[in-house]
Amino acid sequence: MTPAMFRQACRQGLYREQSSGQCLGYTQANLVILPESEAYDFLLFAQRNRKACPILEVTDVGSRKLSVFATDIDIARDCPQYRVYRNGRLVDSPYEVSSIWQSDFVTFLIGCSFSFESALLENGIEIRHITLKKNVPMYTTNIKTTPAGQFHGNVVVSMRPIPAKQIAQTIAITEQLPQVHGMPIQVGQPESLGITDLSKPDFGDSVPIYNGEIPVFWACGVTPQAVVMQSKLPLVITHAPGHMLMTDILDTELTKVLGE
Amino acid sequence: MTPAMFRQACRQGLYREQSSGQCLGYTQANLVILPESEAYDFLLFAQRNRKACPILEVTDVGSRKLSVFATDIDIARDCPQYRVYRNGRLVDSPYEVSSIWQSDFVTFLIGCSFSFESALLENGIEIRHITLKKNVPMYTTNIKTTPAGQFHGNVVVSMRPIPAKQIAQTIAITEQLPQVHGMPIQVGQPESLGITDLSKPDFGDSVPIYNGEIPVFWACGVTPQAVVMQSKLPLVITHAPGHMLMTDILDTELTKVLGE
Repeated sequence: MTPAMFRQACRQGLYREQSSGQCLGYTQANLVILPESEAYDFLLFAQRNRKACPILEVTDVGSRKLSVFATDIDIARDCPQYRVYRNGRLVDSPYEVSSIWQSDFVTFLIGCSFSFESALLENGIEIRHITLKKNVPMYTTNIKTTPAGQFHGNVVVSMRPIPAKQIAQTIAITEQLPQVHGMPIQVGQPESLGITDLSKPDFGDSVPIYNGEIPVFWACGVTPQAVVMQSKLPLVITHAPGHMLMTDILDTELTKVLGE
Repeated sequence: MTPAMFRQACRQGLYREQSSGQCLGYTQANLVILPESEAYDFLLFAQRNRKACPILEVTDVGSRKLSVFATDIDIARDCPQYRVYRNGRLVDSPYEVSSIWQSDFVTFLIGCSFSFESALLENGIEIRHITLKKNVPMYTTNIKTTPAGQFHGNVVVSMRPIPAKQIAQTIAITEQLPQVHGMPIQVGQPESLGITDLSKPDFGDSVPIYNGEIPVFWACGVTPQAVVMQSKLPLVITHAPGHMLMTDILDTELTKVLGE
């Protein structure tokens, strides 16, 4: 299935599942949709916290199209599932948002760790939550983001257990992908991030850490969502966790496409 | 001289020269100062054209201070020289801009190729315009920037002649510094960039290309300035070319400081 076919299936209500493992090798993106009045502060927040919020593309005001990451696309209908937040509260998880679309909406596409996971798998590094068909475990840390306007909050990290002898390789691979959170922010010390119990993630599922493995922590694309929710804006739309927007850009093309 | 002493000397009117070669190893920055009403479009322009416009820091509205790149600083007085553009026309080149400072100003610090030049010199790669005590030659290309709001125009490149056998090393070094334009956008084909005569740069000085050398082209920090001037905004302030803002951050710290 091509990314365009995948989006078409979403648009027609034929695909409503998580997108993990679909259209392998193509970049999937986090979505944040908010009114123009908040767009500058959010873009500045992303700029100041790029490791957690690597921006892939920003639409023009009101547009449901993209210029770079996809051509045949309707942002309001092409995610498998959305979430609607009003005043910071989750009020709906619809399959399309065209009925509540506003002409002042701006859409932000944010890099997703699915991209580096496929690079790790290709290099023989197991991704535990994929093996176990679970969501990646995510934790709110004690690391504060750099605020911008009303947007502030703590960095959320994702965790993957990696065998000690593969950690250097893991870092080398993810360092090459700064557009999708890049290299880990920390290796092996959950307590210094303020994480007291790895078996109780704040988001996603817990996964076992086997003998000889070290927990490795990456800045996570849930950070901007958590921050946006916390801001209690009248209306914000995001993708539903794991139900990402599929793009036409290969993970291996990201550096070229983003001109970095 | 420390960066803080350098800025103090500018503030007191004791230093008004170009900043090239001062406080070696410290990051110098391009400055663009414009009203809040234009800040979103400019930040979006930078986001869409990061190779030419690598943002280092953005101030809060009205602030003459920085949080990351310097502590003891007054943005309105600490550049060796400024330029003032009204309606797209250069109207003044003052040594301080506190008298025309507006409470709605936002300041953008943008990466400067001075940073990668010191890295190249340290690795035994000659920088011709430094050897000859000239300005780097810069050319307007036929490559269009990706527009945002009223900001649009063509990419400006800087050119350095590099011996053929040092080109791979030059690329490897600058690739490591995406915060200061990163690796070249092109090697050895000025005509395909729309540059017809290397001896007639659009900005800066021409430099000789010796036998065995190839012209190498980098996206240039003059791009955002050229674009902002072209936009004919009522009031924009920049640094005067070559008279950069000196920061407290070492070039070698950029990756860490920007969290990339």
